[in-house]
Amino acid sequence: MNKRGLLYEGKAKKMYATDDPNLVLAEYIDQATALNGKKKVEIDHKGALNNQITSHIFGYLKTQGIASHFVDQISETEQLLKKVKIIPLEVVVRNLASGHFETKFDVPHLMRFEAPIVEFYYKSDALDDPFINDAQIIALKIASAEQIAELKAKALQVNEALIPFFKALKLTLVDFKLEFGLDENNQILLADEISPDTARLVDQTTHMSLDKDIFRKGLGDLIPAYEEVLKRIQDKENADVHR
Amino acid sequence: MNKRGLLYEGKAKKMYATDDPNLVLAEYIDQATALNGKKKVEIDHKGALNNQITSHIFGYLKTQGIASHFVDQISETEQLLKKVKIIPLEVVVRNLASGHFETKFDVPHLMRFEAPIVEFYYKSDALDDPFINDAQIIALKIASAEQIAELKAKALQVNEALIPFFKALKLTLVDFKLEFGLDENNQILLADEISPDTARLVDQTTHMSLDKDIFRKGLGDLIPAYEEVLKRIQDKENADVHR
Ligand SMILES: Nc1ncnc2c1ncn2[C@@H]1O[C@H](COP(=O)(O)OP(=O)(O)O)[C@@H](O)[C@H]1O
Ligand SMILES: Nc1ncnc2c1ncn2[C@@H]1O[C@H](COP(=O)(O)OP(=O)(O)O)[C@@H](O)[C@H]1O
Ligand SMILES: [Mg+2]
Ligand SMILES: [Mg+2]
Repeated sequence: MNKRGLLYEGKAKKMYATDDPNLVLAEYIDQATALNGKKKVEIDHKGALNNQITSHIFGYLKTQGIASHFVDQISETEQLLKKVKIIPLEVVVRNLASGHFETKFDVPHLMRFEAPIVEFYYKSDALDDPFINDAQIIALKIASAEQIAELKAKALQVNEALIPFFKALKLTLVDFKLEFGLDENNQILLADEISPDTARLVDQTTHMSLDKDIFRKGLGDLIPAYEEVLKRIQDKENADVHR
Repeated sequence: MNKRGLLYEGKAKKMYATDDPNLVLAEYIDQATALNGKKKVEIDHKGALNNQITSHIFGYLKTQGIASHFVDQISETEQLLKKVKIIPLEVVVRNLASGHFETKFDVPHLMRFEAPIVEFYYKSDALDDPFINDAQIIALKIASAEQIAELKAKALQVNEALIPFFKALKLTLVDFKLEFGLDENNQILLADEISPDTARLVDQTTHMSLDKDIFRKGLGDLIPAYEEVLKRIQDKENADVHR
């Protein structure tokens, strides 16, 4: 599959056209951003790590019956994807309190919710990704009531699949962000990435963050943490294969 | 009904106990606040106007089958109310874009929504009344899923009753805020007030605001506008009686 023109340069990936109009190529870049892009640095090897982690996760989700844009990892930093029309909503699922939730509602760090929380943020750099509710999404014609219900159900299904996946790696899935898109038949597909950039992962033994909070909070170097996440995924996959 | 000890001094009303443990007395005070109390001034006669306006509105809502805390207006500035346990949610209904919504989503002023929007804000001065969604309300045990559904249905029912009420006064109901409480049987009752302090009302001829936006935006004197709203309500009631 040949890489054609650059379609979009995002904060974490460059999206390229391919020979096939229904496929795009995502190149994961060596950049970390926080505060909606206001804090930004180059970090060697980060693109390769996130590409590999997210490829493993989308591959696993496929085995769990979760349809996504993911076609194949094609190099250390690149994946082939079904091209979708992204629904401009960041869909956040929370199992334990952290980040914005913790400060907004002044609850204890890592307080566990009885049931996971789903939140929507309107993906708009100009508006600073505002928190949005169902009625507002419908009124602004961002998605229909039926689509919102499907997004919530799919996000919770991803959560149910990911909790045991990370638990087997001795990681607690605190929260994560998903994006969804519409394929050529207007079917909703899971899209974008799932990586330590977009999910909070806490080591069950050391209680240390193995995710972008290291960068957000200036706690040190991301790379060893992301390498550790990838290593645990690979070790588990090797163990599963040889079982 | 004798006025007993002060129970709570709010931004707009003083709440007093009465001889009957199930009844409270609300005294509307001459104070206007904005920005969650950060902007605050005394305004002569405002308490009397809001007390009369809100009494008329709750009286009208009763004729429309909407159960509330309202028992009776007992003086120019006082009402008798069923005592409820306030559910700490501000329930906002929007018919046209204004205020926070307009700035947050950068939409045209007074853009009309196809269907009314319901929003919840967590009533907490310490947290600055944060915007909250259904899943968060449930996770924080502020209300149950069933209660949330009932609050939304009741808020929309109030909206359906108020739109024609204000239309008959040549006023457009842009948006408003409600509070609800639980009575001794844990039934949800409409509570608090509905006045130009808590509803945006736009004159259908002049397109001027006849509500607290005059104060929020520093457009002049509130009193003539609130007097005009009360006068239109009274004129209509007199006309209805003599028909
Ligand atoms: N399968 C896909 N088809 C089209 N666009 C996609 C697909 N998956 C993700 N995208 C979009 O690609 C863009 C690049 O990703 P990223 O670098 O994370 O951007 P951003 O800075 O907007 O977060 C994002 O806008 C994302 O929504
Ligand atoms: N029927 C009722 N029983 C008990 N409390 C009520 C009732 N109706 C309203 N309240 C509460 O009375 C308080 C006083 O009103 P207000 O001056 O508007 O206060 P605030 O500054 O909190 O907005 C509010 O906390 C309101 O929720
Ligand atoms: Mg992104
Ligand atoms: Mg109040």
